[in-house]
Parts: sequence; C-alpha cells; structure tokens
Amino acid sequence: MQTCDYKKMESYMLSCMQDSAHDSQHIYRVLYTALDIASHEEGVDFDVLIAACLLHDIGRQEEFRDPALCHAAVGAAKAYAFLTAEGWFPAAFAQRVAGCIRAHRFRSGSPPARIEEKILFDADKLDVTGCTGIARSLLYIGQVGTPLYSLDAAGAVSDGSRDEQPSFFQEYHYKLKGLYSLFYTERGRELARERQSAADSFYRSLLQEVSSAYRSGPQDLLRFLQ
Amino acid sequence: MQTCDYKKMESYMLSCMQDSAHDSQHIYRVLYTALDIASHEEGVDFDVLIAACLLHDIGRQEEFRDPALCHAAVGAAKAYAFLTAEGWFPAAFAQRVAGCIRAHRFRSGSPPARIEEKILFDADKLDVTGCTGIARSLLYIGQVGTPLYSLDAAGAVSDGSRDEQPSFFQEYHYKLKGLYSLFYTERGRELARERQSAADSFYRSLLQEVSSAYRSGPQDLLRFLQ
Repeated sequence: MQTCDYKKMESYMLSCMQDSAHDSQHIYRVLYTALDIASHEEGVDFDVLIAACLLHDIGRQEEFRDPALCHAAVGAAKAYAFLTAEGWFPAAFAQRVAGCIRAHRFRSGSPPARIEEKILFDADKLDVTGCTGIARSLLYIGQVGTPLYSLDAAGAVSDGSRDEQPSFFQEYHYKLKGLYSLFYTERGRELARERQSAADSFYRSLLQEVSSAYRSGPQDLLRFLQ
Repeated sequence: MQTCDYKKMESYMLSCMQDSAHDSQHIYRVLYTALDIASHEEGVDFDVLIAACLLHDIGRQEEFRDPALCHAAVGAAKAYAFLTAEGWFPAAFAQRVAGCIRAHRFRSGSPPARIEEKILFDADKLDVTGCTGIARSLLYIGQVGTPLYSLDAAGAVSDGSRDEQPSFFQEYHYKLKGLYSLFYTERGRELARERQSAADSFYRSLLQEVSSAYRSGPQDLLRFLQ
C-alpha cells in the first residue's frame, strides 16, 4: 500500500471518530493486533486487511445516534463509497474491504469467511477481552449513563447473571464473559486465553467490594431510624 | 433520626444526582460503609453522619458545569440551606452536617477533624480504592471523553507516571495509586488495604494488554507501506 493512501484512509477514519470507547486508540490496537495474527496465517492480502482495520468502525456515530442502524453495515457502505470515489481504488478491492467490515460485528448475520475477514473479526473481538474489554465497557456505560449493577428484590447487589435491566454486571455476563470461545484464528484464541483470568478477577473483586457494603448496611441503617 | 426526615433528605439527594460515576449507588455505598466504620468508633453522632453521607455529593452537578467550583463547598452550603429551611433542623445540627461535607474532599483545604467528618472522608475515599475506584474512574473518563492512555515520543504506550495529558493511566498514578495511606480511621485503612492488590493487578494487566499491541505493530505496518 502506498503511504499516501494509508494516510488518506487514516484521515478519513479520524474524521469519523468521536467517542472515547471506540475511539482511534481502539483502531490502532485492532490494526496492530491484526498484523500480529496475520503473521501466523497464509495468503493474507495485507492491503485489504489494513484498509479494513482502519475503516471498520467508521459507522459507529450513525449507530450511536440511531441504535436501529448496524454500524457494520453502515461502515461497509461508507468504506465502499469512500474507496471508489473518483476511481481511487478498484471496485473489487473496495468490495473485499467492505466485506471485512460487514462481517466484523459480534452478532452479525454475515459471519466472516475470507481470511482477512476472520483476522479483523478476531482482532476487534480481542479488544473486548481481558482488562481492555472491561475498561472499554466501563467507558461506554459511563458515556450513556448505565449503572454498575442492579439490586435484587431483597436489596442485595445482583451479580448480573439474571438481570433484565442494563448494567455493567449484566454486560459482563451477557457479552464479555462468553467471548473467549468465539475466535476464528488460533493466534486470536491464544491471545484471548491469556487475558481471560484478569477480566474474571476484576469482575469478582468488583462484585465482592460493592456487595460487601450492602450486606449489613441496610439493616444497620434501620437501627438508627425511628 | 425520624424515618420521614431520612426520606426527605434521600429525595433531595436523588433530585441532585444525574451522572453515572457519582450517582446514587455511590451515595448508598458510602452510607453503608460509614455505618460499618462507625461501629468501630466511639462517640459518633449517627444522625449527623447519616445526613452528611446522604448529602455529601449534592454539589457535584455545579462543579461538573463549572470546574472552578468545589463540590464540597457548594454541597455544604446547599445542605445547610436545605436542613435549616423552615426551621426543619437546628442550625447547630446543620452546621455539623455541613462541616462533614466541606471536609470530605480529597484535596480539601479543610481536613476532617470531628469523628463524623473522618468517617465520611474515609467511607467516600474507600469508594475510590480497589476495583470500585477503577470502575468509577473509567465511568467518569468515558463521560468526559478522556483516553485510556497517551503515547510517548517513541510511539509506545506511556504507563502514566510522567504524563502531562489526562488519561486513565495518568489518573491511576496521580490519584488512585497513592490513596491507600490517606485514611483517618483504622477500619477505613483496613478495608482499603484489602482492595489495593486488585486495583494494582487491573492496572498492570491493562497496561500489558494495550502495550503489547504497540510493541511491534507500528514497525510491522511500515513493512507494508511504500
């Protein structure tokens, strides 16, 4: 890839990034991790992979403004239009980049098939594993105002496993905790496994800390109220 | 304290809470933890302590809108006005509650002196220790759009210890890491010590995860650019 082409894609990506959790630092981590994974695979088209990594989240703002939209579908369409504008890249190249972007979403209806699609998927998912995933989830729920936990009917802190209301503990159980088996490449799976216990430790420590306050606090309070 | 008085203060507190990091869950954790600490101390006025815990962050929104304001000073004035409105509570009681609120701030110029002031200070600081402190910091920086880390001049992830730009790693080094010696009660210090290693583990794991992507990524990328 020509450096000037890379710079043009990077500038476009930066112009589309505005929020902290999915900001440009995430894009560079995904790009660098994808290059690591790719070095363990055969037949990778690095130009397609690099372009797809840079542009994979350019539809985030649209989904943030309208949650009915899928940022993977929006991003794929935006990337195709951007890459083919004024004949900059061939349609076949833009299609392969758009294909990677369309298939990178966790709950996507179009799972990754080509090797570049699998690598982007795994590199992006790795950024939701471990302490990085914990940190990015907390940045996001801080941004949208979701609480850390819900209380159960007895007034104790719920661990999130049966929660209906959104919270960090619910997100941990319904998304973060189960990610570790969802990798397409061996290198992706290996990197995820290295991070799993740190995320689990954080969840258990946080649950223990916040639960301890509620264990006797509400009963203690009643002793001082008439 | 009469239950109806508690409910009236609780309603006022809830009407002042709007953000996720310092939201009402923080208030209840501080209240319940303060009762735990108080059970290890002598001569505590529980009515003053309970009122001060409930109302200690009612000046947060004012500081959020205008960072030149100190939420402890604003909160103390608001609490005094609220408690003495229509002769609800004696001025002496309201003054002691306001004194606790004024002295609860980490970098306050008026450190806690009375036992209720020390207990509120410690209970509030405990909520910045351990994984709870990590989680609340991340919620807050998500809300204001601060990044997780900065890059140093060589393009590597900075550990935060010498950062001039705001980031989560800077916050960890300049605030969270050094909190553990700043407690006025033995029980507060004991609870903080129990949480220290979990917070430190999270910081080290997150630093290791994000640094690893930047270790060879930028050099690997250059091999594919012409």
